[in-house]
Amino acid sequence: MSSSSSIDQPNVITCKAGKDLVMEEVEVSPPQPLEIRVKVICTSLCRTDITAWESQAIFPRIFGHEASGIVESVGEGVTEFVKGDHVLTVFTGECKTCKHCESKKSNMCQVLGLERRGVMHSDQGTRFSVKGKPVYHYCAVSSFSEYTVVHSGCAVKVSQQAPLEKICLLSCGVAAGLGAAWNVADISKGSIVVIFGLGTVGLAVAQGAKLRGASQIIGVDINPEKYEKAKCFGVTDFLNPNEYNEPIQQVIKRISGGGTDYSFECIGNTGMVTTALQSCCDGWGLTVTLGVPKTNPEIASHYSAFLSGKTLKGSLFGGWKPKSDLPSLVNKYMNREIQVDEFITHNLPFEDINKAFTLMREGKCLRCVIHMPN
Amino acid sequence: MSSSSSIDQPNVITCKAGKDLVMEEVEVSPPQPLEIRVKVICTSLCRTDITAWESQAIFPRIFGHEASGIVESVGEGVTEFVKGDHVLTVFTGECKTCKHCESKKSNMCQVLGLERRGVMHSDQGTRFSVKGKPVYHYCAVSSFSEYTVVHSGCAVKVSQQAPLEKICLLSCGVAAGLGAAWNVADISKGSIVVIFGLGTVGLAVAQGAKLRGASQIIGVDINPEKYEKAKCFGVTDFLNPNEYNEPIQQVIKRISGGGTDYSFECIGNTGMVTTALQSCCDGWGLTVTLGVPKTNPEIASHYSAFLSGKTLKGSLFGGWKPKSDLPSLVNKYMNREIQVDEFITHNLPFEDINKAFTLMREGKCLRCVIHMPN
Ligand SMILES: [Zn+2]
Ligand SMILES: [Zn+2]
Ligand SMILES: [Zn+2]
Ligand SMILES: [Zn+2]
Repeated sequence: MSSSSSIDQPNVITCKAGKDLVMEEVEVSPPQPLEIRVKVICTSLCRTDITAWESQAIFPRIFGHEASGIVESVGEGVTEFVKGDHVLTVFTGECKTCKHCESKKSNMCQVLGLERRGVMHSDQGTRFSVKGKPVYHYCAVSSFSEYTVVHSGCAVKVSQQAPLEKICLLSCGVAAGLGAAWNVADISKGSIVVIFGLGTVGLAVAQGAKLRGASQIIGVDINPEKYEKAKCFGVTDFLNPNEYNEPIQQVIKRISGGGTDYSFECIGNTGMVTTALQSCCDGWGLTVTLGVPKTNPEIASHYSAFLSGKTLKGSLFGGWKPKSDLPSLVNKYMNREIQVDEFITHNLPFEDINKAFTLMREGKCLRCVIHMPN
Repeated sequence: MSSSSSIDQPNVITCKAGKDLVMEEVEVSPPQPLEIRVKVICTSLCRTDITAWESQAIFPRIFGHEASGIVESVGEGVTEFVKGDHVLTVFTGECKTCKHCESKKSNMCQVLGLERRGVMHSDQGTRFSVKGKPVYHYCAVSSFSEYTVVHSGCAVKVSQQAPLEKICLLSCGVAAGLGAAWNVADISKGSIVVIFGLGTVGLAVAQGAKLRGASQIIGVDINPEKYEKAKCFGVTDFLNPNEYNEPIQQVIKRISGGGTDYSFECIGNTGMVTTALQSCCDGWGLTVTLGVPKTNPEIASHYSAFLSGKTLKGSLFGGWKPKSDLPSLVNKYMNREIQVDEFITHNLPFEDINKAFTLMREGKCLRCVIHMPN
């Protein structure tokens, strides 16, 4: 790799010792074949960043996976992108040629699917270094950096007209919630929905349910401050489990007339998946699990839930194929068919990224958009 | 109840003390409003009878739920049946008027659904007695008796031409397996299927898969004697987990090229549900759970199975609405579109019913049809 074409820049990397993210000068090497180097414009903080950061599995590492940017240079063999293209980065890629990419039923690309090892697909190496020592990637994106290198299969070209400081939300959380409602559950008009957890993903599910014409959208969260915002996205009934002496699934069954048609677990609490299953109705009740749990990865449920005809279903990224589907989702936003701006509760400059972490840990924000310096 | 119209007859009832079923004279009272009294012609032994018998939750009790018979008399208000009608009894009814009966998506009748309390729907009483003491029902059927009383919603009128000594199998196990393949999984042509447990239900799933044009049907069972029979029903590959040093899901993933499209748990082992989930492919893999576990009713699975797009689904009676669907299933049998006779490995007279229990406990039979005395 030629050091003359690498970029020295101040970046956020994480290191073992500190509690907070640490800002450092990082060298970003040029894109290798089939890769692109992207100038990150905006990146928003997603809960998965915090979960991964807290687990400290690999370090030093540059986090961030929900982002928008502009192509700065392209590696050998890249024909899809040119310098100046506007892109969304994605944590799960689309190679367009594997069995899953060719199937209409899956977005689990077998070549560029969810990558957590912190290295690039082509050579298992990193494109970041500090003083010659490798710094690892995160989720194939690493957007907490002014520049990043991603596989060309992990970026999606979008309209130049779309505001990058808004649509970055469509590269993970908001798209995942909409996709869970539309692709995974395929919510039908007039149905009753319950959503556990009213963060960005949960409220994106609510928006998806509302746009499908759900007649009742029950939101469950222990934080009553979320109710006002939840109303904007279509939540009709708010339940705080702490205000009831009976199990919340009993309350849900009562107010939904025997159980909901759909239930969504958006907290990342596997115990709550059981509650979600118990909240939906016999026969056709469908529970969709979206959360990534911090602890206890086992989902347990009594077989009788299934004997009565219920279904438990999951998905990655709401079932969207990123390259095939995200551009039209961006267009829907441009046509005001979906709301995105309303999820943005905070805007912060890059140097204040640790504030964003604090806000999210304290449940004070939906999405905090981090703006990179020009 | 008028004792003049009750029937004294030798019947099987169970009692607390004995290891075996005990034959006793039982008084069968006349049908109450909306009920019918049925002369049982044939009844076959289903694993659920053994599981319930071993649990000894309610006694004394008359077991048996997979049966065919002839209407002997009808209670007040019954317009659907007349004396002489041929019927299949069903453990889950169809009232035709509740929300679930009116929906195309459910067979979980809210009025006459799965009933395990051992009493009749209308008055919570029993229609059996011995020397004036009540004897409880089982699964709304109790067919281990020369005569039984069932709610008119728990019997299905069938063609007089259909042989009652064969089609009794369609009142539970064979129908449940076919329904799991057709209604619950909706298996598509060319797909790959794995079935855990090659008893009657598992082999009925295999038959259903074969008729849908599955290209590979993998059967998993620790009893190699089952392979020959399994071939007749369409199983193409037989796997005995005891013959492998690696987890069986790895073997299945290898021989199916990355995981099956569908997996069916037909053993009633909740631990095997996890294995079944791990055996099917990412993206669209569907696991159907059919078994009723004897122990450990909790199904546990790692959330990552769902994150990769898998689905876990259950059903009662293969999703069939008994009154709406069973007559056409009987017709399919009459037209030789489905095999039923091949599941019958033994025929025994009523007095030898304990032999049937022994055969099933020892894994020596598929279905043992018990013939009532004329
Ligand atoms: Zn995310
Ligand atoms: Zn692919
Ligand atoms: Zn049965
Ligand atoms: Zn009903």
